[in-house]
Formats: sequence, C-alpha cells, structure tokens
Amino acid sequence: MNSKKKFAVVLAGSGVYDGSEIHESTLAMYAISKNGGEYQIFAPDIDQYHVINHITGEEMSEKRNVLVESARIARGNIKNLKEFKFEEYDAILFPGGFGVAKNLCTFAFDGPNCSVNTDVKTAIKAMHLAKKPIGALCISPALIAKVLGNVKLSIGQDEETAKAISSLGATHINTKHGEIVIDKENKIVTTPCYMLDSSIADVGEGAENLVKAIMDL
Amino acid sequence: MNSKKKFAVVLAGSGVYDGSEIHESTLAMYAISKNGGEYQIFAPDIDQYHVINHITGEEMSEKRNVLVESARIARGNIKNLKEFKFEEYDAILFPGGFGVAKNLCTFAFDGPNCSVNTDVKTAIKAMHLAKKPIGALCISPALIAKVLGNVKLSIGQDEETAKAISSLGATHINTKHGEIVIDKENKIVTTPCYMLDSSIADVGEGAENLVKAIMDL
Repeated sequence: MNSKKKFAVVLAGSGVYDGSEIHESTLAMYAISKNGGEYQIFAPDIDQYHVINHITGEEMSEKRNVLVESARIARGNIKNLKEFKFEEYDAILFPGGFGVAKNLCTFAFDGPNCSVNTDVKTAIKAMHLAKKPIGALCISPALIAKVLGNVKLSIGQDEETAKAISSLGATHINTKHGEIVIDKENKIVTTPCYMLDSSIADVGEGAENLVKAIMDL
Repeated sequence: MNSKKKFAVVLAGSGVYDGSEIHESTLAMYAISKNGGEYQIFAPDIDQYHVINHITGEEMSEKRNVLVESARIARGNIKNLKEFKFEEYDAILFPGGFGVAKNLCTFAFDGPNCSVNTDVKTAIKAMHLAKKPIGALCISPALIAKVLGNVKLSIGQDEETAKAISSLGATHINTKHGEIVIDKENKIVTTPCYMLDSSIADVGEGAENLVKAIMDL
C-alpha cells in the first residue's frame, strides 16, 4: 500500500442501538486521519430496520433511512454503497453498532442464518478477492464471518456470539480491551470495542491498533 | 482539581447541522477518558429547532427531541440538563455544531441579540461563579460570550462571528488548527475545530489540548 492509504468506511445509521456506534465510527475515522490515511464514507440507501429511543431503549414510531442518518457521522460527505468501487480503495472498514446486525445484515435476529444486504456482501467479497485488507470493529466481524466463512477474527469474549461465528466456519479468538486479531492470509483485522465493557479510551486504542495493522498489511 | 476530574459535557442533539457536531463531541469525551478524567453527558429536554437532512442540507418534516437525539452520542447514559448540579463537577464542556446556535441559543438566527436556553445559562453562570473551568469548541464560544460577556476566547478566524462575539464585550483571538485560547482569569478554554477547514485529526488535537488545559487550570 502506498503512503496515503484510502479507506472505505461503511456505516449503518447513526447510534448504537439502531445504527452505527458513533464512538467506534468517529475514532476509526480519527485513527485513519491521524495516521496519514484518507477515508470515504459509504452506507446503503435503505430504511433502518427500526428507530430506537436511545434513552429508554424502546422502539419509536418513526422511519429513518440508513444513508441519510449515516450522513450525520459523515458531515454530509457520504456515498451510496452501490457506488463503491473496490479498485479505488486500499482497505474497507466496518465500525460496529446494532445497525450492522439489523440493517447491513440480520444477525441480531437470525444469528448464523442471517441474510446480508447485497451491496454489503458485494463490497466485502470484492475486497477479499482483490486481497485488500478488511477491518471490522465490535459486532461487525459476525458480518465478515457470514460473508467469508473460514477466516480468523474476534468479537471479544461473548460466548454466544463467538459460537455463532464458529458455526459459520470462522475461527474466533478471545480478545481484551484494545487488542486486535490479524488474519494475515485473508487480510482481516478485528477488534472488540464495545462488545466488551470498554471505556471510550479503550475503543480509541482498539481502533488505532486496527488501523495501523491494516496500514502495515 | 483532584486526580479523577469530572466533566459535565452538554450536547445539543446529534449531527452537525441541527445538533452537536459528532466528531467534536466524541473526541472531547475521548480526550477526557484518555487523560484520566470522567464525564457525564447532559442535554436540555426540548424540541430541536428543526431536523436537517445531512446529505441535502434541506429541512425534513420531522420533529426530534434534543435530549433523545443526544442520547445517541451518549449511548443512553445522559441526564436532563435541569438535573445538572455545579457542585458535582470540576468542569463543564460544550462541543460545537449548529445545534448549539439553534437549540441551546438562537445565535444562528439572531447573532449577538440571541436568547439562551435557561438551563444552559444557569449552568454556565453557576460554573463561572464557582470559578470552575468552562471548555467550548467550534461555535460554542459564542454561547459563552453571550452569557458571560467580558471574556477572552476564539472561534477560529471567521470575521463575522468574531465581530458578533466582540460586540458582546468579549475579546476574540484568532486561532489555527488545534490551537486553544486560555482565559486564565475566567477559566475559559476554547478551540476552533470545524469553524476552520479542519481534518478530523485537527479536531482531535484541539479537543485534547483543550481538555489537558482544563485539567491544568
């Protein structure tokens, strides 16, 4: 990879319970920028599965669009994931949040039997085939396992999720705060973030370790 | 101030155009946590002035609540600003974003003649009177100038905003990426963030410099 590495960052909305986790998304973008990289944000142009009141945890009787809400984290600079071209990027990165498991795929409801959004699946497969690095934070490794199967990754230490991931043919490695797992063969780097009981400083450390490892791959 | 400094962070929604700027909010919280501090997030329980589609910049025909949307950045751990007690905090911090100038006060519409939300005004005045540090990022220094008048601060280099701030009795100092202005007498620290054409790395640097300066005050 050359000096100014270009990341595609794929979002799933804006907010941990129905979209992308905001701290993980921001701190991943921060780590890319701070370490001399560039990023372009993408999201699918689809309705969110639902809208959650982040104080009560209850569903709200609203409809929101994943691309429009993700634009809040992107400050408006966002593209429809349909426009993603693997040739233009050195790496792709998926922050976590329930939106990954509700909007990008249905892992939150269907576990290993989940379905995956077509554009998301296409993007992951294209990068993998092109032997370009894939980064996944928090719950996003479950999505990668669903699409790629036999890879090595981590969602932290949650036994049930780790079991679901293993049933997809992937190898799960337990990790602690800020740690990463590198699958060198498949160029996949993962870190647990808020899948553990993390502080925002832990999340920043994990995001930075992940971005640096991707830049070194 | 003792070793584990406790910050109150006041949000104004979630998203640069109608709420709190997400990167500034996250990176301020990150800087607090990374430097050994703690934070509690607050927001007023009021309707947003409006809801902006962050792709098109156009108003959407929706209603959203400042406290409920701020909870997205807070991951649900948020309090109504009415419950803020100055005795319990070592410092108060205001990230930027248009929400500060639309929801917390009306500076975006009325400039120096703006009105300020009562709970916001009370919180700022109480901390100032108690000689506790106040941090303000991006456009938030305009809010501080409106409430406190004769203080020294910076919103970067925007001449019109600087002029409006000066007309409130405050002294405006031009700043560049990542720089801070410290008003030692009034214990106010400010930094421009996205009021300049900043990268997210610049914003992180400014937030960190501001938090460290507050911890040293």
